[in-house]
Amino acid sequence: MRVLVPYSTRDPKSRLAPFLDADERVSFARRMLEDVLTAIRDAGHAPEVIATGAVAGLDVPVIVDERHLSPAVNAQLDPPVAIVMADLALATPVAIQRLVETPGDVVLVPGRGGGTNALVVRDAAFRVDFHGNSIADHRDGARRSDCTTTEVDSYRLSTDVDEPADLVEVLLHGSGRSTGWLREQGIRLRPTEGHVDVERP
Amino acid sequence: MRVLVPYSTRDPKSRLAPFLDADERVSFARRMLEDVLTAIRDAGHAPEVIATGAVAGLDVPVIVDERHLSPAVNAQLDPPVAIVMADLALATPVAIQRLVETPGDVVLVPGRGGGTNALVVRDAAFRVDFHGNSIADHRDGARRSDCTTTEVDSYRLSTDVDEPADLVEVLLHGSGRSTGWLREQGIRLRPTEGHVDVERP
Repeated sequence: MRVLVPYSTRDPKSRLAPFLDADERVSFARRMLEDVLTAIRDAGHAPEVIATGAVAGLDVPVIVDERHLSPAVNAQLDPPVAIVMADLALATPVAIQRLVETPGDVVLVPGRGGGTNALVVRDAAFRVDFHGNSIADHRDGARRSDCTTTEVDSYRLSTDVDEPADLVEVLLHGSGRSTGWLREQGIRLRPTEGHVDVERP
Repeated sequence: MRVLVPYSTRDPKSRLAPFLDADERVSFARRMLEDVLTAIRDAGHAPEVIATGAVAGLDVPVIVDERHLSPAVNAQLDPPVAIVMADLALATPVAIQRLVETPGDVVLVPGRGGGTNALVVRDAAFRVDFHGNSIADHRDGARRSDCTTTEVDSYRLSTDVDEPADLVEVLLHGSGRSTGWLREQGIRLRPTEGHVDVERP
């Protein structure tokens, strides 16, 4: 299946500012994108990047569209098609395969905090809208378009990496470039009372 | 399968203090326990509660053990057996069934922040240890006991409810007593820039 991966080249991952400066956030976002593309390819699918600006050095097609995320994705929404966010650093081929094999006109993977981390669209009536509480909007939109909806229950795909707490998950459960890069920067786990935090000594 | 549900009657859910007072935290923890027991029963399994003190009004066996979580669970660890934490407010029968049907001497479900939210134990050599970064300790312990290990990739089972941010997930994706109780207390979603938060006006 064609799998679209939207990728912002404009100040990515701003909520990681307490741990990473602007250049580092660009580097980390790029590592996460590479991990997502690898998982999609290793699952046997064909990723394409939809980027807000030029992205060099990727061996996959890059569609440059300067518009916001939703119109840029909707312009490419020729079903059947999957959309997978570029910051799913824990994505594995198995998880991508579960997504793509799940039946339904619209298949949704919620992200923590109300987002939508991945979709499969099999009905041309459906449009994406990533603004705000998008998982609720996507459920409503599918209903209005008379589409059947299925949700995929995956910790790996529901974990988008936005905040320092998410780095804990990447360090604990990741094995790709993103995890290696964080370790190279000296970012590491710090046990606290009852759970685990991150620190950059 | 026999499914053990450890439940603390001592100051539960203390990290929810910004939103709920001590009595409310007890009420909320009880609603979450009931949701977990319902999911296990609806999946066709037999839950038993392991509690640190007396728990009234439950129609399942309650084993009272005043010790810490790990020795109390290990005392009941006669395989095959599953252990499911009592604060998995988003657990569904489908997710419980996936857990129980996953093969492996030791089946692990990580919790966010380094914890272990659920296990299946099919080898008597394995012991639980819930202290600190328990998912890493459980992986190591399974290896030392020559047990095969499998992990279940489930957002619903990986979401233990410890912090205010977790209440967002309960309000967005729950449909049980816990979600209803939060709404009755006036706790509701508040859209913010880029994601969703909770508020109690």
